[in-house]
Amino acid sequence: MNILIINGPNLNLLGKREKTIYGDASFEVYLESLRKRYNEINIVYYQSNIEGELINKIHEYGFDYDGIILNAGAYTHTSIALADAIRSVTTPVIEVHISNVHKREEYRHTSMISSACMGVILGFGLDSYRLAIEAFKK
Amino acid sequence: MNILIINGPNLNLLGKREKTIYGDASFEVYLESLRKRYNEINIVYYQSNIEGELINKIHEYGFDYDGIILNAGAYTHTSIALADAIRSVTTPVIEVHISNVHKREEYRHTSMISSACMGVILGFGLDSYRLAIEAFKK
Amino acid sequence: MNILIINGPNLNLLGKREKTIYGDASFEVYLESLRKRYNEINIVYYQSNIEGELINKIHEYGFDYDGIILNAGAYTHTSIALADAIRSVTTPVIEVHISNVHKREEYRHTSMISSACMGVILGFGLDSYRLAIEAFKK
Amino acid sequence: MNILIINGPNLNLLGKREKTIYGDASFEVYLESLRKRYNEINIVYYQSNIEGELINKIHEYGFDYDGIILNAGAYTHTSIALADAIRSVTTPVIEVHISNVHKREEYRHTSMISSACMGVILGFGLDSYRLAIEAFKK
Amino acid sequence: MNILIINGPNLNLLGKREKTIYGDASFEVYLESLRKRYNEINIVYYQSNIEGELINKIHEYGFDYDGIILNAGAYTHTSIALADAIRSVTTPVIEVHISNVHKREEYRHTSMISSACMGVILGFGLDSYRLAIEAFKK
Amino acid sequence: MNILIINGPNLNLLGKREKTIYGDASFEVYLESLRKRYNEINIVYYQSNIEGELINKIHEYGFDYDGIILNAGAYTHTSIALADAIRSVTTPVIEVHISNVHKREEYRHTSMISSACMGVILGFGLDSYRLAIEAFKK
Amino acid sequence: MNILIINGPNLNLLGKREKTIYGDASFEVYLESLRKRYNEINIVYYQSNIEGELINKIHEYGFDYDGIILNAGAYTHTSIALADAIRSVTTPVIEVHISNVHKREEYRHTSMISSACMGVILGFGLDSYRLAIEAFKK
Amino acid sequence: MNILIINGPNLNLLGKREKTIYGDASFEVYLESLRKRYNEINIVYYQSNIEGELINKIHEYGFDYDGIILNAGAYTHTSIALADAIRSVTTPVIEVHISNVHKREEYRHTSMISSACMGVILGFGLDSYRLAIEAFKK
Amino acid sequence: MNILIINGPNLNLLGKREKTIYGDASFEVYLESLRKRYNEINIVYYQSNIEGELINKIHEYGFDYDGIILNAGAYTHTSIALADAIRSVTTPVIEVHISNVHKREEYRHTSMISSACMGVILGFGLDSYRLAIEAFKK
Amino acid sequence: MNILIINGPNLNLLGKREKTIYGDASFEVYLESLRKRYNEINIVYYQSNIEGELINKIHEYGFDYDGIILNAGAYTHTSIALADAIRSVTTPVIEVHISNVHKREEYRHTSMISSACMGVILGFGLDSYRLAIEAFKK
Amino acid sequence: MNILIINGPNLNLLGKREKTIYGDASFEVYLESLRKRYNEINIVYYQSNIEGELINKIHEYGFDYDGIILNAGAYTHTSIALADAIRSVTTPVIEVHISNVHKREEYRHTSMISSACMGVILGFGLDSYRLAIEAFKK
Amino acid sequence: MNILIINGPNLNLLGKREKTIYGDASFEVYLESLRKRYNEINIVYYQSNIEGELINKIHEYGFDYDGIILNAGAYTHTSIALADAIRSVTTPVIEVHISNVHKREEYRHTSMISSACMGVILGFGLDSYRLAIEAFKK
Repeated sequence: MNILIINGPNLNLLGKREKTIYGDASFEVYLESLRKRYNEINIVYYQSNIEGELINKIHEYGFDYDGIILNAGAYTHTSIALADAIRSVTTPVIEVHISNVHKREEYRHTSMISSACMGVILGFGLDSYRLAIEAFKK
Repeated sequence: MNILIINGPNLNLLGKREKTIYGDASFEVYLESLRKRYNEINIVYYQSNIEGELINKIHEYGFDYDGIILNAGAYTHTSIALADAIRSVTTPVIEVHISNVHKREEYRHTSMISSACMGVILGFGLDSYRLAIEAFKK
Repeated sequence: MNILIINGPNLNLLGKREKTIYGDASFEVYLESLRKRYNEINIVYYQSNIEGELINKIHEYGFDYDGIILNAGAYTHTSIALADAIRSVTTPVIEVHISNVHKREEYRHTSMISSACMGVILGFGLDSYRLAIEAFKK
Repeated sequence: MNILIINGPNLNLLGKREKTIYGDASFEVYLESLRKRYNEINIVYYQSNIEGELINKIHEYGFDYDGIILNAGAYTHTSIALADAIRSVTTPVIEVHISNVHKREEYRHTSMISSACMGVILGFGLDSYRLAIEAFKK
Repeated sequence: MNILIINGPNLNLLGKREKTIYGDASFEVYLESLRKRYNEINIVYYQSNIEGELINKIHEYGFDYDGIILNAGAYTHTSIALADAIRSVTTPVIEVHISNVHKREEYRHTSMISSACMGVILGFGLDSYRLAIEAFKK
Repeated sequence: MNILIINGPNLNLLGKREKTIYGDASFEVYLESLRKRYNEINIVYYQSNIEGELINKIHEYGFDYDGIILNAGAYTHTSIALADAIRSVTTPVIEVHISNVHKREEYRHTSMISSACMGVILGFGLDSYRLAIEAFKK
Repeated sequence: MNILIINGPNLNLLGKREKTIYGDASFEVYLESLRKRYNEINIVYYQSNIEGELINKIHEYGFDYDGIILNAGAYTHTSIALADAIRSVTTPVIEVHISNVHKREEYRHTSMISSACMGVILGFGLDSYRLAIEAFKK
Repeated sequence: MNILIINGPNLNLLGKREKTIYGDASFEVYLESLRKRYNEINIVYYQSNIEGELINKIHEYGFDYDGIILNAGAYTHTSIALADAIRSVTTPVIEVHISNVHKREEYRHTSMISSACMGVILGFGLDSYRLAIEAFKK
Repeated sequence: MNILIINGPNLNLLGKREKTIYGDASFEVYLESLRKRYNEINIVYYQSNIEGELINKIHEYGFDYDGIILNAGAYTHTSIALADAIRSVTTPVIEVHISNVHKREEYRHTSMISSACMGVILGFGLDSYRLAIEAFKK
Repeated sequence: MNILIINGPNLNLLGKREKTIYGDASFEVYLESLRKRYNEINIVYYQSNIEGELINKIHEYGFDYDGIILNAGAYTHTSIALADAIRSVTTPVIEVHISNVHKREEYRHTSMISSACMGVILGFGLDSYRLAIEAFKK
Repeated sequence: MNILIINGPNLNLLGKREKTIYGDASFEVYLESLRKRYNEINIVYYQSNIEGELINKIHEYGFDYDGIILNAGAYTHTSIALADAIRSVTTPVIEVHISNVHKREEYRHTSMISSACMGVILGFGLDSYRLAIEAFKK
Repeated sequence: MNILIINGPNLNLLGKREKTIYGDASFEVYLESLRKRYNEINIVYYQSNIEGELINKIHEYGFDYDGIILNAGAYTHTSIALADAIRSVTTPVIEVHISNVHKREEYRHTSMISSACMGVILGFGLDSYRLAIEAFKK
């Protein structure tokens, strides 16, 4: 089983940025634990702050992999292009968020990509990623 | 570990109603399989079509149980009273939906209760409930 | 032929409440005349002020009866749950209103349930119910 | 008893146009059956695609006839002038629609003329016209 | 000096229609008195319920006459085509209304044509037309 | 003098729920002190989380009692049915709130019931109820 | 006959300010010509940039004078207090504007005071004031 | 105990203005009765039609007095500056209205100052002021 | 190959009206050049300022011709009836505009008919018509 | 003659992605046929999923080439930066779309770039590009 | 060089009011330091809580001075009259704010006067005034 | 002291693009003069048309430098991702604009990043950058 995890803008600063919202663990450390727990799964990880590169990566893996877990960060709320990319490929995509975006600013309550995804998991901290893997495993 | 699952309006018809959206399994059958898989957890189930009775149940269990899984059905989109109930208790509540509500009518894209919940899981069919249990287990 | 008439909130006060809008006849007296005129039809009548009980009743009759005539009162304008109930059953539902709601407050111009119903009849006083029976008879 | 039926834009194509929405019967054939059923009533019929001519006709018959049945087609959603015409005359007007407009595009959910009419009947196919006659007969 | 007065939809019923709003004088009688008072001015009068015919008339007189007084009735609030017609000609146009439209329904508070006209005079009953002539005389 | 106090959803948790907003006194204790202070008045108290039962209670007392004090909780912002119930009875109703709702979330700034009530008192903690009694006493 | 002319904010700069919009005549010079033309009328003139002083003046003259001509300048678009002042007095008020406000910024298209006034005259340059006098003379 | 009552625009006309809405008692007479009833309280009264003078008065008394009762009239709905003034001082302010503003025009349903005040009392006629004193007395 | 070109309101003034926007060529002269260039195609031309007559013409040619080129002028932005007419016929319709409507007033940015047409071509001056013919030729 | 064709996000998947909307031809094959047909024109082609690179390319060619044909894909609806780029250069730009975007989701009906372009051509499948070349040829 | 600094409503309380937002320095002390630093510039200072008096002052200095620095306080967000005053004079005006208004309530994000000013400087505490002087010096 | 200046999309064309809005000086020349004037400050300059690269640069310098001056160009109005980047770092950021964006199109009046920045300076041409340096110097 092959799964791609994509993190969007500013998520490279995880563990360094606004810790009261996002926690103080870096994503790399967390990724390690995830790979250990699900060692039967091949987990590829990609991060970029550039919207178009996120699209490129979805195109690249989106016809062969079993699942994509996408935390599009702030592009979640503005990017029709990302939603189109998701609809363009055949691999199912799960939208995840670390924080419960509905507890935050009004403009974070709208997602342009949810309707293109298979499902949404949000608000569980880094555990949101694991739950997405659980969803694909089924 | 004690978990309460609450289903809101029209979810008593699951397996009977709009099968292309909700699938054809009744919730009772699914519940059985869930209890088997997580036999270390005490799972209580409640369904009502009456908004105020859902609130009553949240009050009743919301100070002692470890988690509440709430599929508020259509009340999700209109009920401030339910959101207040969730905020009034100490047990964390996870909002779940069977279908990906963002693929449906505009008025289903807004949730009045998300900001009061711990997290949201939607779009995975009945498996959304299992993922919520996974989230509580952690 | 079996028909269920459901009246929603505050319609129990008919003949007693805001007579310039709703007239001064009680619904029970009118129902009697209706049953006499259409004595070949079995007409069941139900009224409740509780949204969820209206849903219960739609579920109860909505798979066997030939038609449901629904005056949802003020829930017309706010209840997605009622609309979902109507969509969940197989019996066709006709939405009726005694007054012409479009002559009244702005918020009464929007109906959440019209799109789930077979048709709408409004503005003819109590005669709206008879016209709905005529529609089902055809 | 004298009744005028007015059909607005594109309704001349009935039976020819978008049959899944409007059915495949021409209005003229239906009118014949209506006149037979209600042979004690004088039914005059008029159709035009021109908004102002619909107004002219309402003015012409709107002080002497017992009722006007108006299917204003797409002008329903945009014409304040038609609503003013209805308010200007003394004959009561019933708004009818063949399809349930609330199941269609958003912009068909608003009627500029409903508040000027006596009542509204919609969604019953061509039978909507007969129900309007029934309403006037009372 | 040549002036064209154009009345739009339903204004042919003046003196007959909703008298509490529009008064009980017919426009023809009023026109007579106007011509007497301003006998040095050639006043042409035109009324139609058809939007396009109002446009035709503006085209016809709009390059030679000294002024057009336009009461566009309900088309005031919806017709971009009329506004375009006014902008297309060289004769200045004054918008008039008999009633104070700002005391009436919300949708009468917006005029599509005001920005295309030279000026606006409203709320003085039939005297609004005379004031427009006074404005042109200057 | 007979007065009915009605508390809506989640107000049964008063003294237990979000104490920084609602204070830590239970309503029952407060009610006792109120009855002592105004021992010449018969004060009946009712609480329910079910919208329709609040309506039932307004119907039951709304033709005989001298005043109803209604804290409709979250239904304040969504329930047209409650507003209709208030308009349906003859007893004057005063809307009260413990907190100053205008200092809270945007959706709590709109009340569906204010226009149906005699007056509004809000923001004085539990003292809001006493002020409503003072208002009725006059 | 007694008439009060009130000019609101920035109109003291007339003839000095944005001449392409307002012209280059000072109001005082124009006022002189007006008094000469209508020498049978007592015309009082008042200007202030302070909203509350405009209200004071309306109160002072609004029970005895035959008419008030009000150019409220920018307060036209924001002041409910001015509208209330107009409604509070018995003297009829005519709203005037020098420019055609509908040709200018969007926020100048809405008037808070029109519905409180007898009528509106706008777009005729300083001649708008004379037309208002003509209206009162009738 | 020292209390300041401030009345905003047009309230100087009380007893003279729109009597069906505001009653026919002048405020001065009412004030006399209030002072008699609460003779242990020093009640200062101020009225102005000028927004900035209301602010000045709040600044003047807002650091020493025990309470301010503010009926801001139409400035209620538009003045952020007044709300800022209330927030700038330490004396608690109660917003009062004579009429039930929610029964009136849409634009009177929004208050810019409520969120800055301690509480709101509205709809009880002049008795609203007395209830505010009762609230401060506690 | 048979093609119908329809021009809507005010386009009869082409070459005469607002030349900076629409150019100074009359449509008839342009039509001649078009017929010469595409002499293998039968091009019928129709212009009317009356919305309903545009509908009539679409009905008349819309079942036999190979293509309709429609410049609906200002009706583009308001006419649902025209859109319905286009949907009612079988001939494909191309929407054209001479100017780039998106560079003009806000209300010209919305087209009610685009979704009913096969495609849209705008902004190329009179050449927009030729491009539409090119599109049909393919 | 030199023309640059720019395709935006996801258009690299043409022929592979959502074929019912975009057809099953790859753009490269189509480009070949285009170059053959217009062999007198130098056609440069560029595609990127990155918004900023589209801007770079417009800057690079936008001062020397004769025309740019831009299908900005989903950036059409969100990118003010692209519109600014178009306005910054001297080469005219034509906006094209393969599908009729007005038949699709609401958010595709708004274009941020149309007002910066020379013209718009949409809905003709890949033929939209050829029509744009035709437009430049003129 | 002559510069006028104008402070609007509630800014007289600076150093006394909401210190976490505005700091605890009084404006007079700050003004002293400013004059010392820029002793070659004549700095006049004016403060008022009355909108119209701010306008008066802009008129008084706005034709002779080299620059006006305006902190309009809450009138920033509501006053079209102030914006008109700024446009009426020839002296350039710079809008300043002490706090970063975009971090505060939604209604403080809109400025009615920005488009009339030369530029805007906000968020630098009292230093915003100095930066405005720097801007004028250039 | 270390300061980073970042220019966003299309600002590389400064001096070449829309000169009536942005002036005709290239940014490089201006930068030189800036460095000369503030030769005690280390000024690094970066420009990119790619949103994500602007984010990268903010991350790179945003923990060590003393200040960032950001002219985000058109991304100002749409980019939540940029705002998140600013909030993620510890270096204070000042938003600058060359033109007074409030004098331009409506969509340029809203900034997504202002609330994340320390302050805003706009409308002073290239001098806006110098004023930002002045602000940091303090």
